[in-house]
Amino acid sequence: MILVLRVGDVSISPEEFLENFRYLSGIGWVEGYGMDRLALSENHVRVRRELIKQLESLGAEVRFDEAGNIIAIIGEGDEAIAVGSHLDSVPGGGRFDGAYGVIAGLEVLRAIRKSGLRMKHKLMLVDFNNEEGSRWFPPLLGSGLTTGVLDKSYVYSLRDKHGTTFEEALRNSGFMGSGANNLYLNPPRFYVELHVEQGPELYREGVDIGVPVGVVGIRVFEVRFKGVGGHAATPVAWRRDALVAFSKLALRLREFSLLKGDRIRITIGRALVKPGISNVVARDVVFTVDMRSYDEGLLDEAEKYMVNSCTLVAEEEGVEFSYGKLWSLGRTVFDRDVVNVVRESCLELGYSCREMWSWAGHDAVYMSRISKTGMIFVPSVNGISHTKEEYTGDEDLVKGLLVLLKTILKLDTL
Amino acid sequence: MILVLRVGDVSISPEEFLENFRYLSGIGWVEGYGMDRLALSENHVRVRRELIKQLESLGAEVRFDEAGNIIAIIGEGDEAIAVGSHLDSVPGGGRFDGAYGVIAGLEVLRAIRKSGLRMKHKLMLVDFNNEEGSRWFPPLLGSGLTTGVLDKSYVYSLRDKHGTTFEEALRNSGFMGSGANNLYLNPPRFYVELHVEQGPELYREGVDIGVPVGVVGIRVFEVRFKGVGGHAATPVAWRRDALVAFSKLALRLREFSLLKGDRIRITIGRALVKPGISNVVARDVVFTVDMRSYDEGLLDEAEKYMVNSCTLVAEEEGVEFSYGKLWSLGRTVFDRDVVNVVRESCLELGYSCREMWSWAGHDAVYMSRISKTGMIFVPSVNGISHTKEEYTGDEDLVKGLLVLLKTILKLDTL
Repeated sequence: MILVLRVGDVSISPEEFLENFRYLSGIGWVEGYGMDRLALSENHVRVRRELIKQLESLGAEVRFDEAGNIIAIIGEGDEAIAVGSHLDSVPGGGRFDGAYGVIAGLEVLRAIRKSGLRMKHKLMLVDFNNEEGSRWFPPLLGSGLTTGVLDKSYVYSLRDKHGTTFEEALRNSGFMGSGANNLYLNPPRFYVELHVEQGPELYREGVDIGVPVGVVGIRVFEVRFKGVGGHAATPVAWRRDALVAFSKLALRLREFSLLKGDRIRITIGRALVKPGISNVVARDVVFTVDMRSYDEGLLDEAEKYMVNSCTLVAEEEGVEFSYGKLWSLGRTVFDRDVVNVVRESCLELGYSCREMWSWAGHDAVYMSRISKTGMIFVPSVNGISHTKEEYTGDEDLVKGLLVLLKTILKLDTL
Repeated sequence: MILVLRVGDVSISPEEFLENFRYLSGIGWVEGYGMDRLALSENHVRVRRELIKQLESLGAEVRFDEAGNIIAIIGEGDEAIAVGSHLDSVPGGGRFDGAYGVIAGLEVLRAIRKSGLRMKHKLMLVDFNNEEGSRWFPPLLGSGLTTGVLDKSYVYSLRDKHGTTFEEALRNSGFMGSGANNLYLNPPRFYVELHVEQGPELYREGVDIGVPVGVVGIRVFEVRFKGVGGHAATPVAWRRDALVAFSKLALRLREFSLLKGDRIRITIGRALVKPGISNVVARDVVFTVDMRSYDEGLLDEAEKYMVNSCTLVAEEEGVEFSYGKLWSLGRTVFDRDVVNVVRESCLELGYSCREMWSWAGHDAVYMSRISKTGMIFVPSVNGISHTKEEYTGDEDLVKGLLVLLKTILKLDTL
């Protein structure tokens, strides 16, 4: 017997949802490695084709826009309520990041369609392309282009590490669509994105659902220390070792983060040492610094601190430094009406919830420029994400699914 | 008019030597990159063929051994005085490291042959294969195999980063020779290696010639910090960041070196950060630690300090660590007779000199196991080596050449 739950006038089957989630999560999953679903890779294309098959089987009209986003519509009405997220993954990522929101959105569309409920709004599901930025940097290309925030020629000309442009890969993938489908031309009235938290707050506090009030500001820098190479036979005191300078800076930035008591989170995730030979002193270290905070003033302070620290360390170690901003995303504040509806939906379903900042960027950031936008977070076990260990239990996945359905039904009445 | 100098009964032309050095150094030299002469690469094969051509034109008998070392012999006598070094380079290396000793040795053979001098000993020139260890790790494979220190099946099975074994490349190169030519079967009585210092001591002190008393002990470890990956959205205090652990260890090892007042030199030259994505906390850092000292007891102490520091840092950061020894070379003390002859040769030529340790490994280390061995060092400008900026002026190159010639003539009388 399959358990069916009722939310308002809609029946929904948690077990069918979980089964479909497990099925679609198997596409691109590699034991011991994690999710192998880089944007527009073979596995990404496969899972998107399966999504389209399911969408079409429930009678949705499926379109692509100029960014290769998949946009599916069911129902009637002048305006749309959109749900969505992304199916692409980081290399060796988890099953949940992105995919959860898309597959839950699909289930909500299916449940509403099956229920025969007449709604004021159309329903729209969007599967955004290249959210992660692992294949083409920066992230959020699909949502950036379709909302008109990013320029088409800029996005199309970006190259992956093998030199393939976004445009080439998009044409080969079969997902190239028309500019007439870009969402900024005909924006949905609401956009709601269901996602795993990717941080440990809900899990540690035992809260069922997070209600994001917005997304923190993010600034990503590339910094280079340029020292002098040389044989390992060089006396240590006479070296200009770029890796020593790097290590000093890494610890200074870590200390800065800790002193600010979690008002800012700084990450060095990529560092390349050249020439990278065991008996040659490091001549060059090129690395990224990712800074996140809900306080733009604190981000300004952190940026100044980083530059001052680089200057100091470069002087101490006799090396040179240079830096540039790779990417940034201003702080986003979500629509208060949508946030309230999400919170009320939780309470009406009997789930504990709390308002919080999202420390990760999401397609909802760019969607908030054209639609009244909010998000729904479910807990991530130990806050682990972007790795194969990322995990959210079935019960929490179902809670999120029901909150999404409830939220849509409530938004339809606004 | 070409200047000709006379050393004992032998006339030698510095200008012809410098011209040949410039000519051979051009093979594999890439402007802006440096020397591109990885062992058994196309450029390495080219320069070795040119060496053989020149050796044959002066009547030398040229053989290869099982390691692909080039062994050339002129003259008669039961026993040989050998000179040599290597023509392979690190990626983007300098013109001088290794090549200088081979090309100067060639010039000495040419000068002695031209002079018609009858010597008690045969003269042997050896161009060792894969000294650098940049293509196949560890270094000194050619000298290690021909002296019987390294096992043939071990050396043959080593793979470069593309998976090519030493044996495959050796067979394709045309330098595969007979085990009957391995030097341990018929060792030269003396081995003298002329080399650039690769450290700054002679240059800074304004000394003409260094007289190495031996080669320091070298231990190379691979260390791994294994943390927990995670999204840049993770609060900093809750992370288990392998790159923070690495940075702490790097600074501790640097401090240890400095406190020991140049009795030990520690280098972290290679460090690989995984997954290496700007918005993912470092899950893994795998890196090398190269330790060098003339004091084996201090190396023991440094190894213990490294392990204790790793333990401490791993505890502080909540990460795991593991380590293993990649390679080591015990301290070598050169033959006192040869060292004395080198020093006397300098003094008789009117050059300042000083006894010193070699902080770099050389083929002379393994040759010292089968032959009475010594070395001759010339200054490296600013001590820079293993990079394209490596430089020794013509005057110093010629001084080293004359000391080599003088040393051979004096050893012939012993």
